Amino acid sequence: MRDRTAAAVVIGNEILSGKVTETNAAFLAKELRALGVALRRIVVIPDEVDAIAAAIRELHPAHDVLFTSGGVGPTHDDVTIAGVAQGLGRRVIRHPALEQMIRELSGERLNDARLKMAEVPDGAELVLDGNLRFPTIRVENIYILPGIPELFREKFLAMKDHFAADPYYLRVIYTRALESAIAGYLNATLAAFPELLLGSYPTIGDPEYQVRLTLESKDEQYVTRAFEHLLAQLGPEIVVRTE
Amino acid sequence: MRDRTAAAVVIGNEILSGKVTETNAAFLAKELRALGVALRRIVVIPDEVDAIAAAIRELHPAHDVLFTSGGVGPTHDDVTIAGVAQGLGRRVIRHPALEQMIRELSGERLNDARLKMAEVPDGAELVLDGNLRFPTIRVENIYILPGIPELFREKFLAMKDHFAADPYYLRVIYTRALESAIAGYLNATLAAFPELLLGSYPTIGDPEYQVRLTLESKDEQYVTRAFEHLLAQLGPEIVVRTE
Repeated sequence: MRDRTAAAVVIGNEILSGKVTETNAAFLAKELRALGVALRRIVVIPDEVDAIAAAIRELHPAHDVLFTSGGVGPTHDDVTIAGVAQGLGRRVIRHPALEQMIRELSGERLNDARLKMAEVPDGAELVLDGNLRFPTIRVENIYILPGIPELFREKFLAMKDHFAADPYYLRVIYTRALESAIAGYLNATLAAFPELLLGSYPTIGDPEYQVRLTLESKDEQYVTRAFEHLLAQLGPEIVVRTE
Repeated sequence: MRDRTAAAVVIGNEILSGKVTETNAAFLAKELRALGVALRRIVVIPDEVDAIAAAIRELHPAHDVLFTSGGVGPTHDDVTIAGVAQGLGRRVIRHPALEQMIRELSGERLNDARLKMAEVPDGAELVLDGNLRFPTIRVENIYILPGIPELFREKFLAMKDHFAADPYYLRVIYTRALESAIAGYLNATLAAFPELLLGSYPTIGDPEYQVRLTLESKDEQYVTRAFEHLLAQLGPEIVVRTE
């Protein structure tokens, strides 16, 4: 079974201060799940070199792939490159190919701020997929993505095939019952299927159902058997519908 | 100046696997900012006791107040109480007053799953504000809140006055210019006003403006002077409007 884990580091004072509602992490969570990748951690931290370096040091050895979002523009608060470099114990260098691209794109408008965008952690590679005009910076297992949602999505989607693992199989049961009334059935199903990923999500005020149960595994037969097992226990009075 | 820092620990496989889009952290970010509290970190972790304990151990000594979201229901995947207790080196006990409330509310429907909701880390206090029917569990500086957005909001709003610090003063400048063209002005303003919280947020495809600049401080005069300083440098051709 091909498993793969991931973590996301979202960098930006604007998110922590409530000025901008973050959407890249939720996008990434959905996309990675569809690719069979287990996203294990999301952290949101300020635009500070030390905070970024600490997050990188903690998360990069513990996951197969790490994504950063934000902090890669030309201004004073764009310190992701410096933070990633510090976290990996690498220097910041100006990447020759990036510098050439920026010089060509900038023409007479070239300035220090634009040249800052040619900086990478030493040893970084440029990933250029699909029809992207500007490459993504990768260093070790870390992909450095921009915070602007349109660019984040465009860059991720262009290279997502690199990350594919074996898929998850998902079944869903919608029930009309309180969570506390069916908790015993969930425990019994987990006792019989200890490897099952079983989620129980109550809702408030939904006219159709009270609890949504999600059953998942990378083994399709396993999740099918667990689904039948739980369904039989719940009984038709409680089950609204299944997916 | 009364400063206060906060962190948020969001617990839930459903968020990391993309089944549910998280909204509590963004709500908390906005509310805390309005209260003058600096939210310094958001982490999203799975429903696992060890992961929760590790997040608590890392974040609770480093912030004035810590909020958890999720993992407090009656089912197998609700392990926040156990995780917080482990992180603090405390036992899990059944809180007598909570147990009594649950017994009275449950009547004949009382079962192990319901009684699980009377469990707290040893030494926890119950916070009952406003018109809430069910108290919030607090242990040391950690407030344990439910993940269901309606309940999270209701509980936070009922007790938010406890957290108030001195307010932030915010000014905003909308500009029609590329970030790289104005980066020098931003750096000059920061050199003159090193304590300023200055954010630069480019947009894509907005017909009105290209970059939104946010200037903040807890010192109202300081932010006013920085705002005038930056405005004078940018000039009227670039500034679309201010707030």
